Amino acid sequence: MATTSKPFVYWGSGSPPCWKVLLVLQEKKIDYDEKIISFSKKEHKSEEILELNPRGQVPTFTDGDVVVNESTAICMYLEEKYPKVPLFPSDTTIRAKVYQRMFETSNISTNVMEFVQYKMKNKDSIDQVLLKEKKDKAHVELGHWENYLKQTGGFVATKEFTMADVFFFPMVALIVRQGANLKDSYPNIFKYYNMMMDRPTIVKTMPPHWAESDSPGNLLDLC
Amino acid sequence: MATTSKPFVYWGSGSPPCWKVLLVLQEKKIDYDEKIISFSKKEHKSEEILELNPRGQVPTFTDGDVVVNESTAICMYLEEKYPKVPLFPSDTTIRAKVYQRMFETSNISTNVMEFVQYKMKNKDSIDQVLLKEKKDKAHVELGHWENYLKQTGGFVATKEFTMADVFFFPMVALIVRQGANLKDSYPNIFKYYNMMMDRPTIVKTMPPHWAESDSPGNLLDLC
Repeated sequence: MATTSKPFVYWGSGSPPCWKVLLVLQEKKIDYDEKIISFSKKEHKSEEILELNPRGQVPTFTDGDVVVNESTAICMYLEEKYPKVPLFPSDTTIRAKVYQRMFETSNISTNVMEFVQYKMKNKDSIDQVLLKEKKDKAHVELGHWENYLKQTGGFVATKEFTMADVFFFPMVALIVRQGANLKDSYPNIFKYYNMMMDRPTIVKTMPPHWAESDSPGNLLDLC
Repeated sequence: MATTSKPFVYWGSGSPPCWKVLLVLQEKKIDYDEKIISFSKKEHKSEEILELNPRGQVPTFTDGDVVVNESTAICMYLEEKYPKVPLFPSDTTIRAKVYQRMFETSNISTNVMEFVQYKMKNKDSIDQVLLKEKKDKAHVELGHWENYLKQTGGFVATKEFTMADVFFFPMVALIVRQGANLKDSYPNIFKYYNMMMDRPTIVKTMPPHWAESDSPGNLLDLC
C-alpha cells in the first residue's frame, strides 16, 4: 500500500480513466506520487491494488485516509480538495454546460469505439451492412462534437480549458491513435487535437506505451 | 418546447436516468413542470425533444435558458442551483465517498443487467457455462453493495440519504423487478430496498407503468 501522505495514484498506460486523473493532478499542479502498473502482467489484480480497490481496477487513488477509485469521483474529489486551480467556472449556468459535456463523452465510447471493436473482432467476416450502420453512428457522434467545438471556438465546453476537456481529450487522442483522419471531415476536432497536443499537461501525461509501440492501424477509417 | 420558466423535465417511465432526475427534483422540493413521453410511440425522437436534445433521448431538461440532458449533469446542476436541501454532505472526505458510490453504480448495469439480458436474448439456446459466468459476476457485484450497506447501516454512502442513493436505488428497484430475490443472499440490500420503498419521494416517482403491467418475470433468479 502507498506509504505516503501525498495523493497517490496507481495507473495503467493508455486507459482513458487513468489519463483523466493524471490530467487533473497536472492541471491543478498537485504534488503527488504514482505507480504505473502493467495491464499485461495483470498488476491491477495484485494484492497491493486489491487491498485498496476490491474491483482490481485502475485508477486506484489514495490521499491520506481517503480512498477513491472511480475516475470521475477522483476528479470531483480533487476539484473540491484542491481548489486553487479550478477546472470548473464559477457561474452555475456555465458549469451546467461543463457537466453536460463531461458526461456526454460516454457516448463516444459507445458510438465510435463500437465501430473500432467490430472491425477488430470480425476481421475476416465483416458484414458490410452492419459495418456501415456502425460507421454512420460514429459519424453522427463525431458530428455532435465538431459542432460543439465550432460553437465555443476553443475548448470543448467553453473558451477555456475545463473539466470537460479532461474527459473529452483522452477520447479524441484514442480515436486518432485508432486511425481516425479528422482533418477533412472534422476540422474543428482536428484543430482542437493539435492545440491540445501542444499543452504541457498533455505532453507530460501521454500514454508512455504509445511512444514505444505502433498504433493498431487504420481501424477508424471514416472516409 | 417548454413554455415555462420553472425547471421542466421530459421523462419516460422505467428509465433509471429519468428516475434519478425526478428523485433529485422531489428530494430538493423543487417546483417543476414535466411531460411524460412514450418510448413505444418513439416520442423521445419527436421534434419537440430533438429541438432541445439532438440525441433524441430523455431525460431532456430545461431551466429558463439552461438546457441540460445528461442525467448526471442535470443532478449536479440541480444540486448547485437549488442548494436549500443538499444531497451532498459538506465534508470533502465524506463527499468523496458519495461520489465514489454514485459513479460505481454503472458497474451494476454492466455486471447484473448483462446476466438479465443474456437470459432474455437467448431463451432457447442458453449456454450454461456462459450463464454461470455471468451469474457469478452478478453475485460478485451485488456482494460489493451488500458490504457497503452493511458498513453504513443506513443509506448507500453514509447513514443519511445522499446523491449516491439517487443513483443506486433505481438500479436496485430494477433488479427486484427483474426477479431478484434479495431476502436470503443479500439481507442488507433487501432491508435497504424495503426502507426506500416507504420513502415518499420514491413512492411519488415509481415508474407508472410498473404499477400497470406485470414484471418481466424471474429473469434474475440468482439462487
